[in-house]
Amino acid sequence: VDRIAIVVDAMGGDHAPSAIVEGAVQAARELQGLEVILAGPEAVVAAEVARHDVASLPLRVVDAPDVVAMDDSPVEALRRKKKSALHVGAGMVKEGLAAGLISAGNTGAVMAIYKVVVGTLPEVDRPALAACVPTPKGTTVLLDVGANVSVRGSHLQQFAVMGHFYSQLVLGVAAPRVGILSVGEEEGKGSDLTREVYDALKGGQLNFVGNVEGRDIFNGNADVIVTDGFTGNVALKVSESVVEAVTGALAKEAAAAGEPGKALMGLFAKAMRKFDYAEYGGAPMLGAKGCCIVCHGRSGSRAIKNGIRAALEFAKGKAGERIEQELLRMKAGKGPQAS
Amino acid sequence: VDRIAIVVDAMGGDHAPSAIVEGAVQAARELQGLEVILAGPEAVVAAEVARHDVASLPLRVVDAPDVVAMDDSPVEALRRKKKSALHVGAGMVKEGLAAGLISAGNTGAVMAIYKVVVGTLPEVDRPALAACVPTPKGTTVLLDVGANVSVRGSHLQQFAVMGHFYSQLVLGVAAPRVGILSVGEEEGKGSDLTREVYDALKGGQLNFVGNVEGRDIFNGNADVIVTDGFTGNVALKVSESVVEAVTGALAKEAAAAGEPGKALMGLFAKAMRKFDYAEYGGAPMLGAKGCCIVCHGRSGSRAIKNGIRAALEFAKGKAGERIEQELLRMKAGKGPQAS
Repeated sequence: VDRIAIVVDAMGGDHAPSAIVEGAVQAARELQGLEVILAGPEAVVAAEVARHDVASLPLRVVDAPDVVAMDDSPVEALRRKKKSALHVGAGMVKEGLAAGLISAGNTGAVMAIYKVVVGTLPEVDRPALAACVPTPKGTTVLLDVGANVSVRGSHLQQFAVMGHFYSQLVLGVAAPRVGILSVGEEEGKGSDLTREVYDALKGGQLNFVGNVEGRDIFNGNADVIVTDGFTGNVALKVSESVVEAVTGALAKEAAAAGEPGKALMGLFAKAMRKFDYAEYGGAPMLGAKGCCIVCHGRSGSRAIKNGIRAALEFAKGKAGERIEQELLRMKAGKGPQAS
Repeated sequence: VDRIAIVVDAMGGDHAPSAIVEGAVQAARELQGLEVILAGPEAVVAAEVARHDVASLPLRVVDAPDVVAMDDSPVEALRRKKKSALHVGAGMVKEGLAAGLISAGNTGAVMAIYKVVVGTLPEVDRPALAACVPTPKGTTVLLDVGANVSVRGSHLQQFAVMGHFYSQLVLGVAAPRVGILSVGEEEGKGSDLTREVYDALKGGQLNFVGNVEGRDIFNGNADVIVTDGFTGNVALKVSESVVEAVTGALAKEAAAAGEPGKALMGLFAKAMRKFDYAEYGGAPMLGAKGCCIVCHGRSGSRAIKNGIRAALEFAKGKAGERIEQELLRMKAGKGPQAS
């Protein structure tokens, strides 16, 4: 069988290496057509792997002795830790030995190293980090959430195409509804930038639904929402902090209620699973060559498994090639095409 | 006794006029040194007032026969409904017959009419709409949340001064911690705009705490957070929608759980009171002459009473004059001063 190889940074994230290795083992066991490559200091990773029964699993370890810390600057990690899992993994993607890399490590370092080692698609001006947001209707792809603090209209148009294909090929949405994040739904509302992009997308062939507002990120009124990395980053962090604040307030109330309160927190935790990033397979860096997925720093084994699954779907769907073709069409003045 | 007069738009908001009049009556009964002026179609408002015992209360009605609808465009409301409560109320502020206006009506119309009729402080380039956000540590003032889609650095500096005085004079924070909303805490993180403002505020005399992130809006790490109206509006709407999404998911889980589910929802409702906008007195339009406060469209009587209270504190603290003096100092090259 031909298997698609995905490299996993065994040392990235708060619960590395144990949760990462566990998730990788689960992925190798459950997903079809996959080979998992765990990158990290060989002895450390091998010891973690030995805790699982991996006898017949398509899983191996490659040595990457340097470890990138969460507080290393991206530049430092890039220049001084050339034998990190990120460098080794990105190198394998570059050489065609693997289809993608996933990491729950330092986001800035992952993106910087991947961009330098593997590079971006020829037609992409700026890769974008895409967050997969849970909604009552499915999953909304919000991009950019932090790769590009300031962007031009042409970048946002590319983000729309990239988000379209991620939603379609990885999340399985047939005709993703694409919106622009703005401050009012009507055409003409928003900034000079959003108006420019509105006009461009209106004439294209994506399933464009116009302006959407902050409240639409979590209600599922669009499958793909494009914005600059500044606004997207703020929106994402606001949402995390609201969930924390609500949870904190409820926990306080529950603690005051004694035993019955404890039982109720269990029910609450169940409801909150819907908002658990672990379900959503991490944030892909769209527009990069190959496939690079950044998982949440707090990722447990389930998040890692789902991140690997997303990378596998991305590679199977040839999402990178589809994005590249579409951007070439746009460049030729043909406008975005839906499928 | 000298009383400070506040005009209340009796017809603005989803629950007008009954909840508005009720809140106004409560304010007139409970707050010291206040006179409430209810503006709206006289017969309608008088009939509502007659349902309460107002015999000795400092409360009166002024006739304003035109009614602005939630879906009227601000321009329409401004040009065609010159006898609306907003026009009449703003006119009274302009002529010194009242110190401020509060409304739970159409935000765009309130701001447009107030700005044209009453105007902005001489040293203010752009008024800003400030949201008062509940946190575990108190109330954070986030501005701008929608008045100005794009801003220059000098505007954000003015927002910092305006927010400082609102926090100090109305919310009672002795030395408000002022931050800039950015995408990373370290100096140098963010956009060209945030870096420019960082440098300017670093040298000033406000209690400047540097960059804050989206997550800091709800954790109380700053008392005042300045940002452009695009980002601020998105942040505010995201937070509202996350609360709705969490509530919805919880209600679904609770419904399936029978009696314990009901108990959980009771506990949750109690916990969520902390996040109730009704506690926080609405969003002041800072930088306008006099005082203009926009309350949430869904405001009930308690929100209106607290909005009136905020307007009264604003007037008592002479917040407008303090802002004006401080901006004059800044113009003279003296930098912002804390108190």
